[in-house]
Amino acid sequence: MITISLDVMGGDFGPEVVIPGAAKALERHPDVSFVLFGLKAECEPYLNKFPKLGERSVFHDCELAVSMDEKPSAALRRGRYVSTMWRAIEAVKVGEADVAVSAGNTGALMAMAKFCLRTMAHVERPAIAGIWPTLKGESIVLDIGATIGADAQQLMDFALMGGAMARALFEVDRPTVGLLNVGVEEVKGQEEVKEAGRLIREANLSTIAYHGFVEGDDIGKGTVDVVVTEGFTGNIALKAAEGTARQISQLLREAMSRTLVAKIGYLFAKGAFDRLREKMDPRKVNGGVFLGLNGIVIKSHGGTDAEGFAAAIDVGYDMARNRLNEKIVEDLNTYHARRQPPAGPEAA
Amino acid sequence: MITISLDVMGGDFGPEVVIPGAAKALERHPDVSFVLFGLKAECEPYLNKFPKLGERSVFHDCELAVSMDEKPSAALRRGRYVSTMWRAIEAVKVGEADVAVSAGNTGALMAMAKFCLRTMAHVERPAIAGIWPTLKGESIVLDIGATIGADAQQLMDFALMGGAMARALFEVDRPTVGLLNVGVEEVKGQEEVKEAGRLIREANLSTIAYHGFVEGDDIGKGTVDVVVTEGFTGNIALKAAEGTARQISQLLREAMSRTLVAKIGYLFAKGAFDRLREKMDPRKVNGGVFLGLNGIVIKSHGGTDAEGFAAAIDVGYDMARNRLNEKIVEDLNTYHARRQPPAGPEAA
Repeated sequence: MITISLDVMGGDFGPEVVIPGAAKALERHPDVSFVLFGLKAECEPYLNKFPKLGERSVFHDCELAVSMDEKPSAALRRGRYVSTMWRAIEAVKVGEADVAVSAGNTGALMAMAKFCLRTMAHVERPAIAGIWPTLKGESIVLDIGATIGADAQQLMDFALMGGAMARALFEVDRPTVGLLNVGVEEVKGQEEVKEAGRLIREANLSTIAYHGFVEGDDIGKGTVDVVVTEGFTGNIALKAAEGTARQISQLLREAMSRTLVAKIGYLFAKGAFDRLREKMDPRKVNGGVFLGLNGIVIKSHGGTDAEGFAAAIDVGYDMARNRLNEKIVEDLNTYHARRQPPAGPEAA
Repeated sequence: MITISLDVMGGDFGPEVVIPGAAKALERHPDVSFVLFGLKAECEPYLNKFPKLGERSVFHDCELAVSMDEKPSAALRRGRYVSTMWRAIEAVKVGEADVAVSAGNTGALMAMAKFCLRTMAHVERPAIAGIWPTLKGESIVLDIGATIGADAQQLMDFALMGGAMARALFEVDRPTVGLLNVGVEEVKGQEEVKEAGRLIREANLSTIAYHGFVEGDDIGKGTVDVVVTEGFTGNIALKAAEGTARQISQLLREAMSRTLVAKIGYLFAKGAFDRLREKMDPRKVNGGVFLGLNGIVIKSHGGTDAEGFAAAIDVGYDMARNRLNEKIVEDLNTYHARRQPPAGPEAA
């Protein structure tokens, strides 16, 4: 049995999307129960529509909801202990839930998750890992925006944590990991990426297969299971790719509706388009996973629909069922135990 | 009359692509003449096929060609003064040509261009500007990989140079300029981007309209005419977007050939597909422009075909005809004159 806590007020639509999304996820995972944190008056009309979900849920009425444009520091000040977002995270901390899912504002969610759950031992900074559709299936990209900049050791931690997530998500024994870099040789700078490559190679881990450097176009090719980069570049690469996908789909839509012949073609090819759309559907890969905290938190896109929110719950379900955080702790301990020999009497 | 010097041996295919590409460009621009730098024995068979090009060209037989995988430092050592790449650039320096175009290796081309042409006064580091197809048309993105990292003043210089290029390329009086950033507020770091925003805003230039920060998905939307970022992020964003476009086109091709109905649909919709392909054709926007040097150098994709190489020549033609470098010098001088009051007797 997996218990998932939900910030029902999070996202652009709150309970209107979160509750139907949870109902959908419940159909797919009969072994799930929910702990719901919301504002009762706003949630009840939606809850009444899904009696099965009601049977598998405990509802907690909260004092307030964090808004989508609230600054993280303000959200933390106002919403700590009492907001739907905070309490969904807290449920993971106290063991009432295995994983928390929120479509609320990313900055506030990360600030609260860090404050409430704290970072794991050996981890200096958490990361957000995204799931990226590729020609071969899916890859994990991290960090996609938790923090800006990362030194070599932090990139090494990202590689470890991303590797553990790939084992939990893709069911591979030894996922391939690449460091995002530019192809031009002898370019000055980004010493931390080169140094991280050295660290990962020398660590010679049994849990990940280090591939070396990868370039921006390797992500979509699916060259590696896990792509490691710092949060500024990761966020911009993700959004540039999302933007390109939207751009092409809009141009395609325009082209297909311009002439009668094209419209006829569209009718015949509709099945093929649907298959493509399904493959590239951003809702299917919805769910940024916060890595490096003492508890699993999943960030859903704020503007998603019920199907997308259900996909974020799916990600949380997989992460909890495959014991993501235990895997990460294990990997980190193995790595650091070898790295730092236990303290003992000094050699005379 | 515009004179363009070509490194005929550059790129994956050398004269096989460069010479037919030049012939295509000549058809479009009857006021162009060429100075060709190549290895005679390898070029002659192709030159013989395009007598009209021969009439409008001067051919210089050179000693050697830089290879595509040669390290920049090695290429510079071996190829300085004598290679086709060097001599194409040198033709710009000595005034024999208005612009040089090469499909040769980027690192070597930049190293030679810097060594031969030197950076402009007031410019610390050159940038490579790319042309990005958007929903509104085209935008300029820089730096896409000349150097890694940039401080606030260098980002300011990129904004100035990108603005001048937009005026030359798009024929707008006051192009809009945005700084690439992540949307999450209160994220630590990237102080140089915030500081650059302050510098550009305070400079209050008549040549560019500063829009503020833009995110990764704003590039494809065409939110601004010029997107400014440092070379690591710019290169990765560009390649991630190119990778996504290729990924979608491959998935679409597969989907369209899977069933008979889909194939029929494809036949009807072919015109629409062709229009889309033309809009997103990477060959049409081929040509990275080196900015900040005392001479214009255009980098064509190494793997492009004759059509793509002709497009790179088109970019060079536009830049030379619209006096790109004079515009940049003018803008830099105006900015720096206001910034640093001319030296004079100190007030007593």
